Amino acid sequence: MNFDLSEEQSALQQKVRRFIAEEIIPCERDPRQTAHGPSEDFRAELIEKARSAELLTAHVSREFGGLGLDHRAKAVFFEEAGYSLLGPVALNIAAPDEGNMHLLEAVARPEHKERWLRPLAAGKVRSCFCMTEPTPGAGSDPSMLQTTAVRDGDDYVINGRKWFTTGADGAAFAIIMAKLEDGRATMFLSDTDVPGFIVERSMDTLDTCFPGGHGVVRLDNVRVPAENILGELGEGFKYAQVRLSPARLTHCMRWLGAARRAHDIATEYARRRHAFGKPLGSHEGVGFMLADNEMDIHSARLAIWHTAWVLDKGHLALHDSSMSKVLVSEACWRVVDRCVQILGGQGVTRETIVARIFADMRAFRIYDGPSEVHRWSIAKRIIKGIPREV
Amino acid sequence: MNFDLSEEQSALQQKVRRFIAEEIIPCERDPRQTAHGPSEDFRAELIEKARSAELLTAHVSREFGGLGLDHRAKAVFFEEAGYSLLGPVALNIAAPDEGNMHLLEAVARPEHKERWLRPLAAGKVRSCFCMTEPTPGAGSDPSMLQTTAVRDGDDYVINGRKWFTTGADGAAFAIIMAKLEDGRATMFLSDTDVPGFIVERSMDTLDTCFPGGHGVVRLDNVRVPAENILGELGEGFKYAQVRLSPARLTHCMRWLGAARRAHDIATEYARRRHAFGKPLGSHEGVGFMLADNEMDIHSARLAIWHTAWVLDKGHLALHDSSMSKVLVSEACWRVVDRCVQILGGQGVTRETIVARIFADMRAFRIYDGPSEVHRWSIAKRIIKGIPREV
Amino acid sequence: MNFDLSEEQSALQQKVRRFIAEEIIPCERDPRQTAHGPSEDFRAELIEKARSAELLTAHVSREFGGLGLDHRAKAVFFEEAGYSLLGPVALNIAAPDEGNMHLLEAVARPEHKERWLRPLAAGKVRSCFCMTEPTPGAGSDPSMLQTTAVRDGDDYVINGRKWFTTGADGAAFAIIMAKLEDGRATMFLSDTDVPGFIVERSMDTLDTCFPGGHGVVRLDNVRVPAENILGELGEGFKYAQVRLSPARLTHCMRWLGAARRAHDIATEYARRRHAFGKPLGSHEGVGFMLADNEMDIHSARLAIWHTAWVLDKGHLALHDSSMSKVLVSEACWRVVDRCVQILGGQGVTRETIVARIFADMRAFRIYDGPSEVHRWSIAKRIIKGIPREV
Amino acid sequence: MNFDLSEEQSALQQKVRRFIAEEIIPCERDPRQTAHGPSEDFRAELIEKARSAELLTAHVSREFGGLGLDHRAKAVFFEEAGYSLLGPVALNIAAPDEGNMHLLEAVARPEHKERWLRPLAAGKVRSCFCMTEPTPGAGSDPSMLQTTAVRDGDDYVINGRKWFTTGADGAAFAIIMAKLEDGRATMFLSDTDVPGFIVERSMDTLDTCFPGGHGVVRLDNVRVPAENILGELGEGFKYAQVRLSPARLTHCMRWLGAARRAHDIATEYARRRHAFGKPLGSHEGVGFMLADNEMDIHSARLAIWHTAWVLDKGHLALHDSSMSKVLVSEACWRVVDRCVQILGGQGVTRETIVARIFADMRAFRIYDGPSEVHRWSIAKRIIKGIPREV
Repeated sequence: MNFDLSEEQSALQQKVRRFIAEEIIPCERDPRQTAHGPSEDFRAELIEKARSAELLTAHVSREFGGLGLDHRAKAVFFEEAGYSLLGPVALNIAAPDEGNMHLLEAVARPEHKERWLRPLAAGKVRSCFCMTEPTPGAGSDPSMLQTTAVRDGDDYVINGRKWFTTGADGAAFAIIMAKLEDGRATMFLSDTDVPGFIVERSMDTLDTCFPGGHGVVRLDNVRVPAENILGELGEGFKYAQVRLSPARLTHCMRWLGAARRAHDIATEYARRRHAFGKPLGSHEGVGFMLADNEMDIHSARLAIWHTAWVLDKGHLALHDSSMSKVLVSEACWRVVDRCVQILGGQGVTRETIVARIFADMRAFRIYDGPSEVHRWSIAKRIIKGIPREV
Repeated sequence: MNFDLSEEQSALQQKVRRFIAEEIIPCERDPRQTAHGPSEDFRAELIEKARSAELLTAHVSREFGGLGLDHRAKAVFFEEAGYSLLGPVALNIAAPDEGNMHLLEAVARPEHKERWLRPLAAGKVRSCFCMTEPTPGAGSDPSMLQTTAVRDGDDYVINGRKWFTTGADGAAFAIIMAKLEDGRATMFLSDTDVPGFIVERSMDTLDTCFPGGHGVVRLDNVRVPAENILGELGEGFKYAQVRLSPARLTHCMRWLGAARRAHDIATEYARRRHAFGKPLGSHEGVGFMLADNEMDIHSARLAIWHTAWVLDKGHLALHDSSMSKVLVSEACWRVVDRCVQILGGQGVTRETIVARIFADMRAFRIYDGPSEVHRWSIAKRIIKGIPREV
Repeated sequence: MNFDLSEEQSALQQKVRRFIAEEIIPCERDPRQTAHGPSEDFRAELIEKARSAELLTAHVSREFGGLGLDHRAKAVFFEEAGYSLLGPVALNIAAPDEGNMHLLEAVARPEHKERWLRPLAAGKVRSCFCMTEPTPGAGSDPSMLQTTAVRDGDDYVINGRKWFTTGADGAAFAIIMAKLEDGRATMFLSDTDVPGFIVERSMDTLDTCFPGGHGVVRLDNVRVPAENILGELGEGFKYAQVRLSPARLTHCMRWLGAARRAHDIATEYARRRHAFGKPLGSHEGVGFMLADNEMDIHSARLAIWHTAWVLDKGHLALHDSSMSKVLVSEACWRVVDRCVQILGGQGVTRETIVARIFADMRAFRIYDGPSEVHRWSIAKRIIKGIPREV
Repeated sequence: MNFDLSEEQSALQQKVRRFIAEEIIPCERDPRQTAHGPSEDFRAELIEKARSAELLTAHVSREFGGLGLDHRAKAVFFEEAGYSLLGPVALNIAAPDEGNMHLLEAVARPEHKERWLRPLAAGKVRSCFCMTEPTPGAGSDPSMLQTTAVRDGDDYVINGRKWFTTGADGAAFAIIMAKLEDGRATMFLSDTDVPGFIVERSMDTLDTCFPGGHGVVRLDNVRVPAENILGELGEGFKYAQVRLSPARLTHCMRWLGAARRAHDIATEYARRRHAFGKPLGSHEGVGFMLADNEMDIHSARLAIWHTAWVLDKGHLALHDSSMSKVLVSEACWRVVDRCVQILGGQGVTRETIVARIFADMRAFRIYDGPSEVHRWSIAKRIIKGIPREV
């Protein structure tokens, strides 16, 4: 049991930290940041910066152009990346691409990896994950899946409606979850420029950091050749689990970086700004908020590191990643909410980046499972007495 | 001691409720709602609706065209108005005009009332209140006031910088707080189309409900005739207090309506949407949030009513209005945050109005004194043993 | 809508306040206070004090020797009584006698009132309410009632086991809830010195303010003449509801007084005690706790007054009393927990009465329905859209 | 970075767990447990059990009869010990002896170690730490120290008053903090059976797990030979810091065990007890509490492990141990409070051990520095920008 970073982890931490400070933060006011994320050309420029710095797509194996980090190294790397809302995009480790790459590398057939993973890992294209459906379809409860895939010759014909499909607008390809006639869930790989794959609109959301925003997608007789099934037929829910815990956890890592950023800005303000005869931070009302921030950030990091270690041991970590999702999303939220409060009026303006972090982060308590669903899962395991993996 | 509404209050409550439901909510998706509030022509249309309904400017005396409501009747009326974010604008009871009218009616000389209050009460013009200053000026600590007013012949020459000047862009006139050479604070009335009154920009804020947004104002040798001093020379802080408690409390009233709106939307969703085999609201995790909402709304309303009663007795109600500001802003915030959570992914989108209420309401915990400043004031009175007014 | 006390309420408030301060608080260190409440002779002395002061049994009608207060007057009176943990006992308005008297007055036949209510209202005897049962019997879920009453000639023969029977040890008579052979619940009146009514033991509890403590009672073929049915056969659950809301609410009133007491002690300490160069209360960390106390006490009082008003209008107030139970029990708990914290080391000692209030009050969040059960009921009404009574 | 226990740590964990389950928990209802802790003969019996199991005084070096555990191994060991409130006493790792041994081993001269440490480590005697003073003396603010030590020939003559002197009644010797004539603080070693060392009384506290309770000690011309200065003259505050972080942290470890115990009992109850048609734990209102417990326990453990690692690196860990003290004491408190709530009525009785854990644990948020003092220290370091040790 120890909390030492390896030399490699330390070096990487410093390198990313410098990269974010010097290359990415200066781009934050770029007007090509839109309500639905950075524009495609802006994204391409950012990716180029990361490629030059040899920091691109760190979580993918070296074979596919990444740095081959394990989960613990990712914990260190992604936190630094998240220090700017643009960092994960620049480093090609943003959702949903990051999780999609992880899934493809874990379960895709070699030819699929060449066709879809390689360009994605190179940052040349973006992807999306068509899972969540409008009412009465699949949301927190995946068993409510409505989208169907019906065999027709060598193809499957997919019909359904998806939403909250992050990055749909502009994605080159999609992983589509659908259920077969026998009810089993299956994942399909499909380019998005095929007939019937229609991005109806992008949803207006509080968060604005995801390239392509969140799409509403209509799947209208989309034909997918049977050979484009991702992995094996009928394994959709199993693969969803493979993607789940790591994807949850990388969310935690990135948002922790964002929370730290907000805290640093609030701290700097609390040192400099005076009120009622002394620096703001010397008022306990403010100082206690800073102390609570530091404790929340510390706790969140420890929870992440622990779950990363569980994953590195080869476990699914569903229980631990649920705990981390709740702990980290709620801790980071408290941090950024306090930062807004410390900044006073400025906290709710774009005078600093904190208001944007605040608006973006609210979704973190919901995406990838709202706290309530995770608490419910955790409780069920406790009541059933299911032993912990580690 | 009783909680009965008078017949008049009841009738007004029903009337405003119907007006908001039938006339205002249908306008909420009007594209003339901008990032800095409804546009001027949109505002004018809304005002016309209220005028037709004979509901305009209810807090001002009948002499100046209002309904002459006391604080308790306002509590009932304004809550209904706040049910739509457009309601207070339509009914001409939004900040800062509402507080400015209250102040003008309380302390302005008759000729000033004719000149500035009458058109404002008629909804023909808007106004602003130039008080808060950028660092190192006056924020929560009014003693840090930097803006100066220097006597020059029959005029005062005002220099300084203000920000968070709500409604500055488009306001017809301003109430300007400045300090005299002897350090005493004074309020001045000035049209905004005079030389040296410069709205440098509007700040980008999370909230978007205030017409004209929040301006950064430069006062560059603004000349104000001495006769345009509001009330008496040197009484600036005293008048600020006259404005303070009622202005705080009307904020509470309006936001309570917004919280109730969010709660109604979340409740309706929790009844209709199913997950894991039953309506969302039948899951205790969601049901408890609805219960907490109802308790928070109930408590907030009682606190408002109580402070309104203290004000109606003729007290300044600084202590009680501080308590209500903290209680109501934090309760309403919890409500809207829970509503976002109940709505799940949709909670962070513009699919419903809840995300906008959420973004707008965050500022409520800061504007008119952050919770921390109020807690500090409350604590000081407790420690000093200052007796309650009632 | 107003918050004025009537002259009579005001006079009573002052009178009880003085009585508690001068007559009861000086008795608090009396060694006859045991782990299971004040001893019987101690209780008798306290009752005598209240009788002399003409303040005894205020909630009962004048016909039976009380003051005939309505619910709002009780709110004022009982809060003052609760300022000392001995106050409710002295004034003969403590649970369970207070609720039993309320129930008897509401539903008992005239001869039962003479036999059981009159001496109880005079403070000559104590009573108990045999309702809650050990697992798997009736707790929060009354439908799990196990105790049976079987008709045998002119009698009913009752068998079962009860616990948390407050005041059982030393009670002169009991109201016993049992189910008939047809499953309907019925309440029976029985003296406790009859064969088969066995108080097995008193439970060791954190609270120590209830005379007779909380008993475990075995009902072993207890014979009750049919004429001693309380009210009507089969109306047990209906009567339980008659008793419920008022009993919940008087708990709230009394504990609010206790919370105020703790707050006063903590405030006094925060004024007097110095640390790090200034009075404790001038540290925001402490001052904010005092401010939160004041807001919690204020909110709790308003909730109580409101529910009392609903009851005075003749409603059952199940929804409102549930809300008040949760709001008040949790607010008072926060208050007393903060007081312990403000007092530092002394807070967890018997150097002040605060530690005892703390230990006693913990049960308030559980007795008469834990917060969770009330939240559940509130949520159900919201989801079903049941309209509020007022 | 990893969270693996070493084989030795694992073995020790299992061994202590078994010891507590088999040897100590069966003693918990022993009537020799008094309001001021286990009696001396009861304590001696418990110590004998640990000695037989070769688990005594694990934190002291093998030279003095312990197991020589580092801080991380202690984290594992002490948590298991804390699973019973009697565990730390039995294993001779309870406060204040545990911290005193740590201090003696770190700074005492060899002859002092032989005289005072050796018998203490063997569990033959108890000790106390005379530091905290009644108002206006030293509490959270050590600079307010009032007790004086005046040189007189070869002796120092000590006068003053101490309280919250844990274990004073029955202690064989004391470490006494006093200030010299020049104001420097010094620690003195003194037997307690010397003239002028008077235990006036033991304080009645909510906690009852400390042998000897918490004494009020009068030091009335206590003569201490100069050779009995602990370590060096004038180094009192420095030594206090040596004792501080580890002592704080071992508190955290032990109470974490107690929180886990309460959680296990509540979990078992939530599985077994039915209400409203299903097991209690299947109600989300209860299940969510269990989930929160598990997350709190998890977070608390990680914080402890991390600070133990910082200490094992040789740092003072004042910042990290402050964070852990706040995080762990508040997390454990939430856990035990929820457990009381889950158990319902039984939660506030002695039917289970949970009510005692609840009452005992309240002091944990105060002893060794209330949360507020730690938050203040943490905030000061943040505002000053003091770099973290690791």
